[in-house]
Amino acid sequence: MRLEYKLKYKDSKTMARLGEIHYNGKVYDTPMFMPVGTNATVKTLSPEELKSIGSGIILANTYHLWLRPGEDIVKKAGGLHKFMNYDGPILTDSGGFQVFSLAKPKDITEEGVKFKNHLNGDALLLTPEKSIAIQESLGSDIMMSFDECVKWPSTHEYLATSVERTLRWAKRGKSVKKNNDQLLFGIVQGGEYADLRKHCCEELVKMDFDGYAVGGTSVGEDKTTMYKMVEYSTPYLPEDKLRYLMGVGDPIDLIENVMRGIDIFDCVAPTRLARHGHAYTKHGKINIKNHKYQEDFTPVDDCECYTCKNYTKAYIRHLITADETFGARLLSIHNIYFLHQLMASIRENIKKGTMSEFRDKFLKEYYGDKHE
Amino acid sequence: MRLEYKLKYKDSKTMARLGEIHYNGKVYDTPMFMPVGTNATVKTLSPEELKSIGSGIILANTYHLWLRPGEDIVKKAGGLHKFMNYDGPILTDSGGFQVFSLAKPKDITEEGVKFKNHLNGDALLLTPEKSIAIQESLGSDIMMSFDECVKWPSTHEYLATSVERTLRWAKRGKSVKKNNDQLLFGIVQGGEYADLRKHCCEELVKMDFDGYAVGGTSVGEDKTTMYKMVEYSTPYLPEDKLRYLMGVGDPIDLIENVMRGIDIFDCVAPTRLARHGHAYTKHGKINIKNHKYQEDFTPVDDCECYTCKNYTKAYIRHLITADETFGARLLSIHNIYFLHQLMASIRENIKKGTMSEFRDKFLKEYYGDKHE
Repeated sequence: MRLEYKLKYKDSKTMARLGEIHYNGKVYDTPMFMPVGTNATVKTLSPEELKSIGSGIILANTYHLWLRPGEDIVKKAGGLHKFMNYDGPILTDSGGFQVFSLAKPKDITEEGVKFKNHLNGDALLLTPEKSIAIQESLGSDIMMSFDECVKWPSTHEYLATSVERTLRWAKRGKSVKKNNDQLLFGIVQGGEYADLRKHCCEELVKMDFDGYAVGGTSVGEDKTTMYKMVEYSTPYLPEDKLRYLMGVGDPIDLIENVMRGIDIFDCVAPTRLARHGHAYTKHGKINIKNHKYQEDFTPVDDCECYTCKNYTKAYIRHLITADETFGARLLSIHNIYFLHQLMASIRENIKKGTMSEFRDKFLKEYYGDKHE
Repeated sequence: MRLEYKLKYKDSKTMARLGEIHYNGKVYDTPMFMPVGTNATVKTLSPEELKSIGSGIILANTYHLWLRPGEDIVKKAGGLHKFMNYDGPILTDSGGFQVFSLAKPKDITEEGVKFKNHLNGDALLLTPEKSIAIQESLGSDIMMSFDECVKWPSTHEYLATSVERTLRWAKRGKSVKKNNDQLLFGIVQGGEYADLRKHCCEELVKMDFDGYAVGGTSVGEDKTTMYKMVEYSTPYLPEDKLRYLMGVGDPIDLIENVMRGIDIFDCVAPTRLARHGHAYTKHGKINIKNHKYQEDFTPVDDCECYTCKNYTKAYIRHLITADETFGARLLSIHNIYFLHQLMASIRENIKKGTMSEFRDKFLKEYYGDKHE
């Protein structure tokens, strides 16, 4: 089945939008946060738990699944949905980000990127065509174009060349795509340069992708720069297509970028933070390992999730301290739920036309008083 | 509330028994296998998962919880049940086994055992009175007497002295016990010496404990010796009290020892094996990491558990290989379910009077053909 996006409502004061994703007989609201399931599992959690906390689309990493277990095995299993027992929508990235971050050294040519498998050192080549072929074998619902993920800061000169190559790669990937049930998104690059972002958007839109991602974020830039990258991109993207900001999950960044026209986000933060004992709360992030929680028999937050309804900070602190994975599991549930609830609040405030007020209130509560 | 045991039926051909544990408005059947929750968590699993796979009593380790988070914190949390969110029965051991195995070097005196905290090296002393005090703070439903856990093999001479001390320790522990809602079990020692086992049983029974454990097993002895240790003990224990074999969980040992009159068992094996990628099946243990399962899209076993109903060997192999804890979680669910189902079959066969036939059939299926 093919995932469909419907734009439902546009905020009159900001670029925020409300939309619906229709998939497999279910409707999922946007803006939405997507948990990351790197190895075809959202770390520590079951598909049932994800559904119970309100997850919709989840993300899986093409690079990781290509190397292990291999896309052919996933294909033989009947695709990612069957392999990992998740019947909601699945998005796969292109593998590009990992090739540029995990798998060094690299050699970028017109053909693609040569790199070393970070598990065994084997020399490998990832190309736009190969990325699509892998993603088609994985059978995700949304595939991403293979792009050059450029570090920040980079010169205008370098990015101008890189954007052209990314555009040629996008075209090559699109031209080999076979499966009409899988959407393919183009990725906007161009760093913090307005002219390059605009150009990249316009060229991608000409190619008519099923959706668009703003890329080149979460590569070391500060928040102001990230917001600019989005501001320089979304005005040139079609309104009736999904817009995805890659690798962004800090609560305030979700709010700020929804206000700049983004619909979907992914980030490893909620599960990674959980494994290190960190939890989001309405009053900022806390470190559950802190000694002050040793005898704190209250929940992590004023929250309706399974974790907060059943467990105390003292217990979770004990689990994390004792290296018990049930602790990471409880905090992962809470952290993802927290972001899903934040997105629900965002949607409410778009409806009411109160996004700016919501952002200011959230900022004050979340960062306002010193926490930790 | 106080846990109650009711003997319901005795096999006429073996020493096997059927019984019921009444606790908190629920009835649990014996013989029963008890999963181990060392640090107040059965590794990777939630209380709801334990209940859904049929767990009744679970075990928590006094030694581990004493050192971390400390029994006072558990007490302030309202006891183990509240701390870990488990409303089924909980058994705590005495801490003795860990003191003798984990925390070396040790110095055994009449007062108790001096040892070093394995986490930070602090010098500590565990005595019969201290063990009871900790277990009362933890608030378990079944407490164990502090005993000397003697390695196998040991001489008759050493064990004769040790058994006398264990009896004095049992008496001291019992005399300081305050909480009538918590049962206290005596532990039979005496190695493989029939006269010492008999003597130890008789003396413990005179003290009138709420139940009895056969100790000194799983300390290196072979199966034949273990079975002897049980055979030399159970005939001298009262029929109306629970009998617990400590640290034993190998499927065949569960069957053999039920036939020798044991009601409850605990073992870390199902969860530990799971973390290493091993799974019980009707045809023996398998190692899911084996290359032959790479494209095996069938369940771990012909089994009704959550894992087998939803996931393939290929997926679980991938998770275990990629070090994803969801793999250990799926195999833990399966392995514990497997032992619970084995106990259910054992209970059926006691009812039918076919324990010997069941044992022979199980042995043939489980060990019969070469597996792995």
